[in-house]
Amino acid sequence: MMEKYKVIFLPDKTEVTVDAGISILQAAGEAGVELDGPCGGKGTCGKCRVRVMQENGGFEWALACRTQIERDMTVEIPQLEVSLHRKNDLTLSSFNIRPDAGVTKKVITVSVPSLENQHPDAGRLLDALGADASKIKLEALRSLPKAVRKKKGLVTAVVSDQEVLAVEPEDTTDKLYGVAVDIGTTTVVAALMNLLDGETMAIASASNPQSTFGADVIARIEHAMQSTGLDQLNRRVIQAINRLIGKLAKDMEISPKEIYQMTVVGNTTMSHLFLKTDPTYLASSPFIPVVSAPVQVEAKELGIAISPHAPVWVAPNIAGYVGGDTVGVIMSTEVYRRQGTFLAIDIGTNGEIVLAHHGQMISCSTAAGPAFEGAQIKFGMRAANGAIERVVINDDVELKVIGHTPVRGICGSGLMDAVAEMVRVGIIQPHGRLVSREEAGHLSLNLQERLGSDEAGMYFVLAFPQEAQGEAVVLTQKDIRELQLAKAAIRAGIQVLLEQAGLNYEDIDEVLLAGAFGSYINKFSALGIGLLPPISPDKIVSVGNAAGAGARKALISQEIRKEAETIARKVTHLELSCRLDFQDRFVNSLGF
Amino acid sequence: MMEKYKVIFLPDKTEVTVDAGISILQAAGEAGVELDGPCGGKGTCGKCRVRVMQENGGFEWALACRTQIERDMTVEIPQLEVSLHRKNDLTLSSFNIRPDAGVTKKVITVSVPSLENQHPDAGRLLDALGADASKIKLEALRSLPKAVRKKKGLVTAVVSDQEVLAVEPEDTTDKLYGVAVDIGTTTVVAALMNLLDGETMAIASASNPQSTFGADVIARIEHAMQSTGLDQLNRRVIQAINRLIGKLAKDMEISPKEIYQMTVVGNTTMSHLFLKTDPTYLASSPFIPVVSAPVQVEAKELGIAISPHAPVWVAPNIAGYVGGDTVGVIMSTEVYRRQGTFLAIDIGTNGEIVLAHHGQMISCSTAAGPAFEGAQIKFGMRAANGAIERVVINDDVELKVIGHTPVRGICGSGLMDAVAEMVRVGIIQPHGRLVSREEAGHLSLNLQERLGSDEAGMYFVLAFPQEAQGEAVVLTQKDIRELQLAKAAIRAGIQVLLEQAGLNYEDIDEVLLAGAFGSYINKFSALGIGLLPPISPDKIVSVGNAAGAGARKALISQEIRKEAETIARKVTHLELSCRLDFQDRFVNSLGF
Repeated sequence: MMEKYKVIFLPDKTEVTVDAGISILQAAGEAGVELDGPCGGKGTCGKCRVRVMQENGGFEWALACRTQIERDMTVEIPQLEVSLHRKNDLTLSSFNIRPDAGVTKKVITVSVPSLENQHPDAGRLLDALGADASKIKLEALRSLPKAVRKKKGLVTAVVSDQEVLAVEPEDTTDKLYGVAVDIGTTTVVAALMNLLDGETMAIASASNPQSTFGADVIARIEHAMQSTGLDQLNRRVIQAINRLIGKLAKDMEISPKEIYQMTVVGNTTMSHLFLKTDPTYLASSPFIPVVSAPVQVEAKELGIAISPHAPVWVAPNIAGYVGGDTVGVIMSTEVYRRQGTFLAIDIGTNGEIVLAHHGQMISCSTAAGPAFEGAQIKFGMRAANGAIERVVINDDVELKVIGHTPVRGICGSGLMDAVAEMVRVGIIQPHGRLVSREEAGHLSLNLQERLGSDEAGMYFVLAFPQEAQGEAVVLTQKDIRELQLAKAAIRAGIQVLLEQAGLNYEDIDEVLLAGAFGSYINKFSALGIGLLPPISPDKIVSVGNAAGAGARKALISQEIRKEAETIARKVTHLELSCRLDFQDRFVNSLGF
Repeated sequence: MMEKYKVIFLPDKTEVTVDAGISILQAAGEAGVELDGPCGGKGTCGKCRVRVMQENGGFEWALACRTQIERDMTVEIPQLEVSLHRKNDLTLSSFNIRPDAGVTKKVITVSVPSLENQHPDAGRLLDALGADASKIKLEALRSLPKAVRKKKGLVTAVVSDQEVLAVEPEDTTDKLYGVAVDIGTTTVVAALMNLLDGETMAIASASNPQSTFGADVIARIEHAMQSTGLDQLNRRVIQAINRLIGKLAKDMEISPKEIYQMTVVGNTTMSHLFLKTDPTYLASSPFIPVVSAPVQVEAKELGIAISPHAPVWVAPNIAGYVGGDTVGVIMSTEVYRRQGTFLAIDIGTNGEIVLAHHGQMISCSTAAGPAFEGAQIKFGMRAANGAIERVVINDDVELKVIGHTPVRGICGSGLMDAVAEMVRVGIIQPHGRLVSREEAGHLSLNLQERLGSDEAGMYFVLAFPQEAQGEAVVLTQKDIRELQLAKAAIRAGIQVLLEQAGLNYEDIDEVLLAGAFGSYINKFSALGIGLLPPISPDKIVSVGNAAGAGARKALISQEIRKEAETIARKVTHLELSCRLDFQDRFVNSLGF
């Protein structure tokens, strides 16, 4: 008989007994423990890094796919890194709306039973609630007998829509919590809110763990089309949200079970994966969602670890590529009810654009590609330590780098700065071509020295090896072409929306840039590369995570949730993929 | 390192690796496989009997608690025995009501999406349904995209209360199934019904597997009060119901997922355990249920393996010891709306009695004890092979025994016959005392020879060793006392109800005997021992499993379900435990 060993996986203490010689990654599979191995065991991706516990109480890191089991082992799977900010760290302004979450608490005294009052607990509870409720949910029934007997019938009923969701012993009406979640393709953000005063208590965020199955929504949809892909993607995002909620609850010293309301925004694909509804038909023309109306289900139907019957409201989608996150942006910026002409843009892999004109709204989505997120760019990277985030060019190049580290690459905002400055000083020609050294007589010698070429074509040195990690960080001709495609897609989208509305760029009162990237854009560069039409920089404002703010607003007000439904229906969506006018505007927007 | 072995438990193929030398019962515990061991491993109860598979493909029986693991093993846990009857075997009359289950099917053609019709699947479905539905449940959303694309948009929506519960591809309106369940303390019965014509297709029954935790409701409640007891009891009954449903579905060649409605009746304790609501406070005065109103939840909330959003309706209870099964009896016998005076009695460990007088109803419950079920009786047994079921006494004793086997014992109906006959011929005196041989001069010699006594007291031989399994089957003085207590409780309950209503037994138009035992009672014996007041035998009718019939009626008609709620509220319940008049009547009813 083959030698067998026991492997215990932390933190869940899942045990499995396996044949000697298989890898930790295979053992994890047998144990049903989720562990990434996207490179298929080649040892190249590093995603399956685990801690192998030592007998002395220490540990050593190992790649699960490359480590064979030759003894009994305890292996710890690293958990999602969560970053958390309490209210005091947050620079959030309060919403100027009356909190009215829909879920309320009622403190009551349930009569004490006797042989003369043999009414069941449920009946006596409803009697005490009077007109406030007429039904009791199953989990509330289950906790009822203990609760009513703890303090002589003094209980707090949590009521929504005439139904009792839960019963807590004693008077707990001074606490009522909700959680608002923004599921981004890259990052998941959860906010714990006090539903009584409408204030945000803390915000936690973590990477979307679906990322190991692909960086963009198309890759996720393709994964969902595989046998258990949809289950996997759904489980990942539910787990991530539960961890964020757990972290928020622990930090604010409450129980997750005291959270009685949840709202969720996300792009259409993220909403589908969250609900485990099939996103297959979003991926190809005619790009049909399963559902666009707001969906309300109970937390336990989705495996969300808050009060089991807590209503979970998922924001409505506008179209296959304009989702509940865009509805969130509209809700929080209030462009749906402001007089004037507004352009709200959320730039990511897709650019979602909404044009609001005195409350009339049209939207479109353009496939900008991942250039703004640093992907497909030779030295592109996320906005992390070592990333060039600002570039100014005069006689020579001046860089602003994130963190006190050597230059490692360039992020989206740095890329946009670099190209805008290079266009301004004439390193890039109007059609997007890098000048050669021979054509660079108008430039300073410092700048001329930065031009070079290799077998892949022309490039421009942003950081020489001594400033970087031994290798020069350059911007290539191909990088510039990628950026041109991305910015032209956004700009053409703006153009088509304006023309559809019979407006032109001079009519725009305000451009609202939403999302993480929108918050970091240098507006002069955005104008410089022609991402935005030539308007006054004063009209350009960054609105931060406006989608998440929309979720928070919806959480504290059922009125706003109703408005969201109206908003989503009211927006006229333009499907650009088949429009010739979009193709024209796109080609016309490629240059600088 | 200690030797380890792998044990595979059938039929679920659950694997576990354990240390050598532990018992199969312990291994089952480690594997999370449920296996009874009420004697605590002493090897005395025989409840943990399993099949240990042999290498030659055969098996041998073993007690799991007494068998050590010394090798890799495959062990089969015996499954619940299910007995099933198809429609042709059933002697059920059709209910004379228009089927209107509440759940309906609508066949529709959902429009085909295009770039000009980018509406989501859900929106196009609701458009096609028009006024028939306004919401879609989560699981219906999940199955929707595949269903609408299978046959060019031709789908069947299952709708209840304006909500789409499920979507099936193509036209399936010729099929609509439901299941009605009667959870008895001893036996669980499930009926598969065609909701289109209201006919019963098949009925399956099995022992209630909660029985290993105690024969009566009090023992079950006590078990539920232990740490994981309620979970265990709940899981057992849910599993039993799922097995019955699986068997019914398989036999009728449908999928359990095609079952879209369920109704449940049971006594108050059984209803609580089914819903996993805490029955603790039913056990002691003032006997308070958690809930008495009808409860409607979704199948998936309870783990019932039918269509996940199928409504599961649990019949209302009248009081702590008069449950939904009694409401079922009232529904099926229609005593709530018949002119006249009716007494409906369901005799089991508890006797539930309802007196209906021109639609006015009062109920009570009396703790008859388990004598009628053969428990607490020296040779008592269930109505199985070898049980004496009929007794006639003239010159000598004539017995009718179930099956062609030697006498093993006596079941409830036989016991009642025996005592009635012994009273009639003077073997038992009016106060319940067995005559001694000395006092037996009025009896035939054959009968005199049957009287005897030992250290435990007097007895009467029903079957001599040669007719039985080598040991005489006797009725003891103590057995007679047990029966007296049981019958007096029922009779006193009847008396109190009549007095409360200002009636007397001559006013009774009909006595309806419900339940398995009620079906087998010899009405002359019931009158003979004074279980029933001295009315004409013509007025006594057996109504079979009237509780289960009530569940079936409620399943096919939402009207009846509404009526059940009214019925439960309309019945005035008398709590006998504190009534002096009941104590009086009880004492007065002890004699013959």
